[in-house]
Amino acid sequence: MQAHSLPTFHDVELASRRIAREARLTPLIESPALNACTGGRVLIKPEMLQRTGSFKFRGAYNRIVQLDAQEHPRGVVAFSSGNHAQGVAAAAQLRNLPAVIVMPDDAPAMKRANTESYGATVVTCDRARQDRRAIAQGIAEEQGSVLVPAYDDPHIIAGQGTVGLELALEARRRDVELDVLLVPCSGGGLIAGINLAFEALSPRTEVCVVEPEGFDDHARSLDTGQRMENELRSGSICDALLSAQPGEMTFEINRRCLKGAFAVSDDEVRDAVAFAYRELKVVVEPGGAVALAALLAGKVDAAGKSVGIVLSGGNIDVDQFCSILNAS
Amino acid sequence: MQAHSLPTFHDVELASRRIAREARLTPLIESPALNACTGGRVLIKPEMLQRTGSFKFRGAYNRIVQLDAQEHPRGVVAFSSGNHAQGVAAAAQLRNLPAVIVMPDDAPAMKRANTESYGATVVTCDRARQDRRAIAQGIAEEQGSVLVPAYDDPHIIAGQGTVGLELALEARRRDVELDVLLVPCSGGGLIAGINLAFEALSPRTEVCVVEPEGFDDHARSLDTGQRMENELRSGSICDALLSAQPGEMTFEINRRCLKGAFAVSDDEVRDAVAFAYRELKVVVEPGGAVALAALLAGKVDAAGKSVGIVLSGGNIDVDQFCSILNAS
Repeated sequence: MQAHSLPTFHDVELASRRIAREARLTPLIESPALNACTGGRVLIKPEMLQRTGSFKFRGAYNRIVQLDAQEHPRGVVAFSSGNHAQGVAAAAQLRNLPAVIVMPDDAPAMKRANTESYGATVVTCDRARQDRRAIAQGIAEEQGSVLVPAYDDPHIIAGQGTVGLELALEARRRDVELDVLLVPCSGGGLIAGINLAFEALSPRTEVCVVEPEGFDDHARSLDTGQRMENELRSGSICDALLSAQPGEMTFEINRRCLKGAFAVSDDEVRDAVAFAYRELKVVVEPGGAVALAALLAGKVDAAGKSVGIVLSGGNIDVDQFCSILNAS
Repeated sequence: MQAHSLPTFHDVELASRRIAREARLTPLIESPALNACTGGRVLIKPEMLQRTGSFKFRGAYNRIVQLDAQEHPRGVVAFSSGNHAQGVAAAAQLRNLPAVIVMPDDAPAMKRANTESYGATVVTCDRARQDRRAIAQGIAEEQGSVLVPAYDDPHIIAGQGTVGLELALEARRRDVELDVLLVPCSGGGLIAGINLAFEALSPRTEVCVVEPEGFDDHARSLDTGQRMENELRSGSICDALLSAQPGEMTFEINRRCLKGAFAVSDDEVRDAVAFAYRELKVVVEPGGAVALAALLAGKVDAAGKSVGIVLSGGNIDVDQFCSILNAS
């Protein structure tokens, strides 16, 4: 695969083999309570159970395992609000490569602490005033290290696509053809990879993204056919879903495959985080809960349907988690 | 099977087929963080993902599905501190049978609310002063309903044994022969059922129980060969593990099969609940966390070994959960 050519389903299959030893094949879980309150059959892919607590490890490891530590002794650099940071740091540690991660100074404390716990050096910047990408590129040039993008990269997309590969195969094993699949979305890497898998394995499933209100760049981009930018850069409870606009490469895939987009409010997200605690017994962070939020808020009519949802991560500070639970 | 004959592995296999449609086949999960900090390979059976948030649904459903609703229109009665209560209530609801549950008045609010949400009538009693069993038996006699015991019953034991059946088969599928298996223990129904499965499928695994300090009736009973009683009736953070002594039937099996017993303090349990939040991203209640607590506290030398642990439930009130997380 060329560095700038679009990945294909075959790349997702290759990624799946490449990451198999280090990534977890996460299960598919079901909740009678969720089935009852939606009137459908819901299959849940709980990616907080993935190594590093989010799906991001998949793409990061698929990218980094293809670097040669001897060719790249200077290691890797990334910029991220937190989950990609942890994915890159953990993958680099497994490959004995140094990692520098540029994170916004308002990133959740747990995300920063975890990133450092994998041996990475964290450089913070001001989310509003500084360009994280430029800082990371500067570090890469200065140190001679390799920049690992968060989504606009064929290996990253293929790695995240293994979520979709596993989900489609396990649904098939259960004799379920999903009518709808709901996936959290920011830069669009996860959904692009999942689209590659579903295009090949479950083409009749309507794959849709869910975004935070005010950060609905994919919804607007699908409407106009152009990559639209968000006006806001912060202000959603979903710290993981604040990308400014769809990625170039990811949007080429997503434009072709996506069937819809939904937006959820902070309160709908809080309800979903509390529901996951109470009924699913898993820890999900706000950005990881948007697909569940859309389902619980009735944005998708699930009655009589089979619906897949991805819970994409569970790295949430105790303060925020307990504040959500106490208000629920 | 006679009502009072000991269950066998075959009964566990029959239970597995009987409950398959309504119970969840819970996954086996692994955590690189847990592997790293123990030096072993740990396979985790997360029963908080089971219907009703604990393994108890398995045994209750296996018992109740064998009742005929037309022969037993008066339904079922049970006494329980909360997880068996939910299991019985949910199973009875699925079979359209009325259920009355006798619960101690200090049971966690979530456990009581969930039990009522499955349509059961809850009768509370004073944990210290009243005999829950006698109250439940009185109701059964008066109403002509069937008492569903929490552990000392062959169908209950066989149902809980499906946890062990699934665990042993999935470990084998991963080419792992467990050296040690750690299981939370109160009346001994879960561990008795698991013992039946491991005796048949993984006889070289050392199966051990974990109990709260001060409620180590199994440890002392194994030492003396007699069913010993606990002096205390309350005072542990593990509200689900306060049975007075091993069951008769369960102890016959457990005496034959168990290889050891460990006790954990409330603080060790709190650490395990917080670890599960932080690293495993699952919600585990204190009683459900004792096996993890024993492992994290180093009571078992896991270095270089394969260790299985059961996280047996996740029904914990927000107040208690957040108080544990905030102190961690």
